[in-house]
Amino acid sequence: MEKSESTKIDVVETNKERKGKAPLLGKAPVVAAAVVHAKGGGAKRGIAIFDLILRIAAFASALGAAVAMATTEETLPFFTQFFQFEASYDDLPTFTFFVVAMAIVVAYLVLSVPFSIVCIVRPHAVVPRLLLIIFDTVIIALTTGAAGSSAAIVYLAHNGNQDANWLAICQQFGDFCQRVSGAVVAAFVTVVILIFLVVLSASALRRHH
Amino acid sequence: MEKSESTKIDVVETNKERKGKAPLLGKAPVVAAAVVHAKGGGAKRGIAIFDLILRIAAFASALGAAVAMATTEETLPFFTQFFQFEASYDDLPTFTFFVVAMAIVVAYLVLSVPFSIVCIVRPHAVVPRLLLIIFDTVIIALTTGAAGSSAAIVYLAHNGNQDANWLAICQQFGDFCQRVSGAVVAAFVTVVILIFLVVLSASALRRHH
Repeated sequence: MEKSESTKIDVVETNKERKGKAPLLGKAPVVAAAVVHAKGGGAKRGIAIFDLILRIAAFASALGAAVAMATTEETLPFFTQFFQFEASYDDLPTFTFFVVAMAIVVAYLVLSVPFSIVCIVRPHAVVPRLLLIIFDTVIIALTTGAAGSSAAIVYLAHNGNQDANWLAICQQFGDFCQRVSGAVVAAFVTVVILIFLVVLSASALRRHH
Repeated sequence: MEKSESTKIDVVETNKERKGKAPLLGKAPVVAAAVVHAKGGGAKRGIAIFDLILRIAAFASALGAAVAMATTEETLPFFTQFFQFEASYDDLPTFTFFVVAMAIVVAYLVLSVPFSIVCIVRPHAVVPRLLLIIFDTVIIALTTGAAGSSAAIVYLAHNGNQDANWLAICQQFGDFCQRVSGAVVAAFVTVVILIFLVVLSASALRRHH
């Protein structure tokens, strides 16, 4: 079995090499260069495919964060004569910012997919990768800002602050707090995936030797 | 005058070329390649020097943010029998996180200077640039998280929140709020510089043609 597998791989490699050789018959060093080029291209294509998969994962978690936050509403089962107690994300400006920021992140991730596909089709293209690194970095800052600010408010909602005389509101609005916390966690997951995307793109950008 | 200047430049360029030529006498295409290499090196060295300057600027603003936050204290001129009203950064856990995070950022920026210098000395080195991009990106996330979370709390301190029944505390602690806001702004400035650093490193990393 092992032997037949290794033969298979050899055949595939020969096929790859043939592509490089076809237009360059008899020029040994150029062919060698072309083969190296093709190998570098293969690694870069692999990175580009992984980039696309991670981008879809980031899209999913960013969408989850935005939707979880935007649909969070809790109405308490008791009410006074004057008003009913209810909590929704737009009571706190930070959570509104969170929803807007995550919506932008989701939109960006959708728009970045074509660039990622270009990197798969043309593994040696420099400009799309460079654009992806630059905009990914900006989006990392936006996502982390949204996640961090909401995390600060969620912490306050859970624990309150004695010195500033801000009381915890999670005793009353337990479900609200849980969903919001989930959205913040999803946003941080998006940040981690985006950091990994930048690292991937940067390592694909470096010259091959 | 103009002519003598252009002569000067020619001489300098010839010197550069000589370095490339010395071990490769009489091999025209190789020499051409070496010259292109040297020119790419010049641009990359310029980027590396700019990187170092920006890094020092980021260090200054991060240090300013950390120090401004850590030294903020305000004691109100009146007090009751039981306690004196005073505000300091460690009353709010978010601000403590801010100080710790910015201290980490400052330490990182100091440690990254040798790598930046390596990039100036060896403009074609790939590994130090790649390391700088990766760690800069992580530090962007850390800085933005700290800045964003503190911004959310500062906003709350300024405006309060009626729905959660959190009162603004900046009427009482005006100086405290101003210094904290300044620290947050300095942290965001650091983020902008760091994003620019990643963009620079990425553009220096790409192959020259």
